Amino acid sequence: METAEVQMVPRHGVIELAFGEPDLGLLPVDLVRRCADRALSSAGPLALAYGASPGAGSVRLTVRDHLASLEQREPDLDEVVVTAGISAGLDLLLTLLLEPDDVVFIEEPTYSLGLRVLRDHRARLQPVPMDHDGMAVDRLADLAHEVRAQGLRPRLVYTVPTFHNPTGLSLSLGRRRRLLEIAAEEELLVVEDDAYRELWFDRPSPPSLWSLDHAGVVVRLGSTSKTIAPGLRTGWLTAPAAVAARYADAGVLDSGGAMSHFSALVAGRFLAAEEYGTHVAGLRREYGRRRDVLVRALTEALPPGCGMVRPGGGFFVRVTLPQGLEASALLAPALTAGVSFVPGARGQVEGGDEALRLGFTYYEPPALAEGASRLGAAIRAALAAS
Amino acid sequence: METAEVQMVPRHGVIELAFGEPDLGLLPVDLVRRCADRALSSAGPLALAYGASPGAGSVRLTVRDHLASLEQREPDLDEVVVTAGISAGLDLLLTLLLEPDDVVFIEEPTYSLGLRVLRDHRARLQPVPMDHDGMAVDRLADLAHEVRAQGLRPRLVYTVPTFHNPTGLSLSLGRRRRLLEIAAEEELLVVEDDAYRELWFDRPSPPSLWSLDHAGVVVRLGSTSKTIAPGLRTGWLTAPAAVAARYADAGVLDSGGAMSHFSALVAGRFLAAEEYGTHVAGLRREYGRRRDVLVRALTEALPPGCGMVRPGGGFFVRVTLPQGLEASALLAPALTAGVSFVPGARGQVEGGDEALRLGFTYYEPPALAEGASRLGAAIRAALAAS
Repeated sequence: METAEVQMVPRHGVIELAFGEPDLGLLPVDLVRRCADRALSSAGPLALAYGASPGAGSVRLTVRDHLASLEQREPDLDEVVVTAGISAGLDLLLTLLLEPDDVVFIEEPTYSLGLRVLRDHRARLQPVPMDHDGMAVDRLADLAHEVRAQGLRPRLVYTVPTFHNPTGLSLSLGRRRRLLEIAAEEELLVVEDDAYRELWFDRPSPPSLWSLDHAGVVVRLGSTSKTIAPGLRTGWLTAPAAVAARYADAGVLDSGGAMSHFSALVAGRFLAAEEYGTHVAGLRREYGRRRDVLVRALTEALPPGCGMVRPGGGFFVRVTLPQGLEASALLAPALTAGVSFVPGARGQVEGGDEALRLGFTYYEPPALAEGASRLGAAIRAALAAS
Repeated sequence: METAEVQMVPRHGVIELAFGEPDLGLLPVDLVRRCADRALSSAGPLALAYGASPGAGSVRLTVRDHLASLEQREPDLDEVVVTAGISAGLDLLLTLLLEPDDVVFIEEPTYSLGLRVLRDHRARLQPVPMDHDGMAVDRLADLAHEVRAQGLRPRLVYTVPTFHNPTGLSLSLGRRRRLLEIAAEEELLVVEDDAYRELWFDRPSPPSLWSLDHAGVVVRLGSTSKTIAPGLRTGWLTAPAAVAARYADAGVLDSGGAMSHFSALVAGRFLAAEEYGTHVAGLRREYGRRRDVLVRALTEALPPGCGMVRPGGGFFVRVTLPQGLEASALLAPALTAGVSFVPGARGQVEGGDEALRLGFTYYEPPALAEGASRLGAAIRAALAAS
């Protein structure tokens, strides 16, 4: 097993465009230190006891106010639970909600590691195709009928509707509304992975599915991993009160208390700090600039036949390869050329080898441009050899 | 939903002997503050990035050295994974290892909230009786055969062999060895909840099942919740390298990184600090004194027909009630008298109403003595009324 401190350690000589992680240099170490100090000073031993199962009351209030500042809809306090980040939230939801004959609908492609969480839970997966407006939601309705005809239960939709991982696309507003109608008709619960809401570059993010939901069919998972720091493992869930209560009533929270009690107090103080708005505005500006640099460099470096859509926010851009070239086969020569990516097949149940995912947040502009150039050269070489 | 900061808030006028939590006054706030500060100073942004899936290398090294100082057996680094505490460790193990037809053996009684985690995973539970030497392990062998005859798979044993929750008993050394033999014969994986190892009062804890295991059948879950602070949500797992690797390879850790990255760096510094030994020796002394106070007060206060075994460590003492008196029925009058307990039935699949669990760590001696007195009066009143 690896013995590094952190998950992502760049290999020597490789520009790791596979990474989906904030730039280490942009992690707000000093402000986190002050927030940790203040949390311990003001809460004292209550910062170190078993946290309340739904999360500390003060953190839930902060999250509620924070979400109200982002969108038109303010959650009730009973609709807010603190989580140990989106992955842990998804994991616990699957434990609590998923029965053996239940089917989970996912976008194709979807977030590759979300797929791994789903597979660990032995979820029956049914992909739904995407186009440039996001998930083809009318196909979802057909697929739900087909699933039911097989004697299985359509249960969950796992979706990243805003600055989708890996495509960077957002679900259109019309489709958002239609998805909610379908979910209500088909008795589906929609798990909305809303990791990138605050990281829009051109115009504010579209409204969350949760904020549009009048039928009580959406569980929205949000996170401080992209805006404050992944290592604090703090996020939130907004859901109908009954779902939120079921989550907070999990045995693992009754036994262990809130999953990130101390860290969540730190993250809560950060969210409520005067500096928060400036900090996130800075991230938007910087990551937006990096998106521009990577997209521009790819436009120059990629040979004809490659495709790409400029994302309006988030962490990623997806590149489709010229006919006949497979991302899985390209990975080794790309690494030799000094650049990595996530092959598209990792985020799909089947297929996906025609595409790859690049992240633009971890590196500064010169490395991004160099990475794009190396990738372009690797693709050209592969085409020449084929 | 509750809006408190922490899980356990005493009700007005009630001495909450139901609580299984460290005394808030003994939580080492200042040393945690220094450790948090040092973690951020020395690791900088690496303290806030996605942590390595098995836990930060430095924390795993610290845990390895710590465990080597407690027992005869030193784990290899590949056998150590950092967890977000025992509950989270158990939860993830169940997700990864439990298939629908698998049976989990538990002590009867067992840890009531561990039972809730198991139920959330829809585990098929098979209780194994206990006596004063702990689990009746020979019955386990018979039960495993019976389970197999039903077409199910005997898969896991969840056990608290050292200062068992709720009884305070420890599994005898002979039975520890026999349990390991049975596990090897029956292809069972033993999940050892080792929460109380460092909190012995009279003589050092018996060796863990893990330290005696030559067949690779034990996953031991340990924690800093009882020795440092529950709110840090940091524990560890020691297991055969293949099991440890499967755990560390979970999708939820690949996606979210280590479940408690920042907190674990803080807890790791605390474990490695010069002050750690003195701190835990102080807890042993203080909690041992409180055990003495509660046991003595119960001996005076309880009417004939009650039973109790003085625990050698841990957090709890279990009281059995006189014939005909049920703990569930006693709870309301006890609360009226100003004392709480955990009814025995909560920790059992069936039965258990003849007993109740009391914790002696949360309160100082005068409250413990008063709680025992109130409980004794409530029992006497219930007997008189029956």
